[in-house]
Amino acid sequence: MEMKDHPIGIFDSGLGGLTVFKAVRRMLPDENLIYFGDTARVPYGTKSRAAVISFSKEISSYLLLRKVKMLVVACNTASSLALGEIRGLTDIPVIGVIKPSAQAALDITPHNGRILVIGTAATVSSGAYSSALLSVRKDVKVTEQACPLFVPLVEEGWTGKKITADVAEEYLSRYRGGKVNTLILGCTHYPLIEKTVAGVMGQEVNIVNSARAAALAVKAELSARGLLSDSGKKGRDSFIVSDAPERFSELARRLLKIHADSVSVKRF
Amino acid sequence: MEMKDHPIGIFDSGLGGLTVFKAVRRMLPDENLIYFGDTARVPYGTKSRAAVISFSKEISSYLLLRKVKMLVVACNTASSLALGEIRGLTDIPVIGVIKPSAQAALDITPHNGRILVIGTAATVSSGAYSSALLSVRKDVKVTEQACPLFVPLVEEGWTGKKITADVAEEYLSRYRGGKVNTLILGCTHYPLIEKTVAGVMGQEVNIVNSARAAALAVKAELSARGLLSDSGKKGRDSFIVSDAPERFSELARRLLKIHADSVSVKRF
Repeated sequence: MEMKDHPIGIFDSGLGGLTVFKAVRRMLPDENLIYFGDTARVPYGTKSRAAVISFSKEISSYLLLRKVKMLVVACNTASSLALGEIRGLTDIPVIGVIKPSAQAALDITPHNGRILVIGTAATVSSGAYSSALLSVRKDVKVTEQACPLFVPLVEEGWTGKKITADVAEEYLSRYRGGKVNTLILGCTHYPLIEKTVAGVMGQEVNIVNSARAAALAVKAELSARGLLSDSGKKGRDSFIVSDAPERFSELARRLLKIHADSVSVKRF
Repeated sequence: MEMKDHPIGIFDSGLGGLTVFKAVRRMLPDENLIYFGDTARVPYGTKSRAAVISFSKEISSYLLLRKVKMLVVACNTASSLALGEIRGLTDIPVIGVIKPSAQAALDITPHNGRILVIGTAATVSSGAYSSALLSVRKDVKVTEQACPLFVPLVEEGWTGKKITADVAEEYLSRYRGGKVNTLILGCTHYPLIEKTVAGVMGQEVNIVNSARAAALAVKAELSARGLLSDSGKKGRDSFIVSDAPERFSELARRLLKIHADSVSVKRF
């Protein structure tokens, strides 16, 4: 089998990375995709750097055994803490969610503009978005805000409820009224509440969806390396989790309308 | 060293069990206490039965090596799924949080009365409270309601905010107005929002605090076995976590006013 026919491996701490999976699937219908959700150890957002690195290397090694042609770290926490360590394991391309979102944000932010990054406690305290943004452009001002309640609100299926808007108001209202130009949804769960966040921030703030930004980066990188599948056949989806496959299927269907009927389990 | 001088081991998936720790400390000032929080794998509420059993046995074995005279499973999920398996490891008494709370609820619930149990998704779907209640009294009606947002709200420190009351209203308002006599706070985090829950339910509903119920059971069991410490000295507190000790200290101080300044780490 040629390298370009190998699958793309996408992993996340749980099911949030399915927003990236979905964006990749939409953009690259011919690719075979393997999604791994570390549901035994979710969430990563409150774990230490050492733990996140160790979990990420374990999953990456497992996906490498499945002969993936690219690794997509569809988890902001793992992208911010473990990308270098994962790249040390392999020569295949490794794409995180931070650099693509940072670049997408910079593309639409004016000179001396202000960028607000929202994410889990771990992503925010890592400062990875600030580093990624400021290493490309020094003129922008970056603020990061942890929003730990957004993930459980999404997983409760309360994305359309007033409470979710109230929580968003609590976290974000201080940044409204011309205080920021661009907001990065720095957690893979957050694209599911993009409308709520946009509603709180107002029309003048541009929102960067990290799932879409990552999918664009996946396509660009595969294309640049001549690794895009040219089979002309519809790609296969495989789902693997480290615990509780039924819950994963149920949430994938309910929250993302992804039919992951057959989910296998790999315990560590 | 005599058995009665050995420490009591208390464990939870994270820091919620500190409400039990605090209740035990208050009731038994002379005892040495070891608290273990499995912060690398928290929360248990969304994990499978197999995973919760495996984690609980691992921690219990570790505490047994530390020569505890009693194991307190200060986690509703582990108490509902793993108590039998833990008892299989040892002859020392093993106390969970479910039976004591169930008994406390039955003590104050009238004949043919109605009991509402609130907890994590895993505790509720295990049906452990219903079994514990109905095995003692068949006349009561038991309803269980999962409230997955309460734990992150507590951990965010938002216990006094209107949003927490709104979330409680969303989960609980349907049970108001004479529909239940007694409510069991079936998660060790929930004593921290007891007032909010009581506010939503109204004065006529009796609230059972599972931390207090468990501490009473600990005292009764030690007393019955002649294992209460008689050293007359103030007991020592030890805190051990499986990840991120600084975050544990910070939250213990902020949420529970427990000064866990020295927290050791045991990784699995």
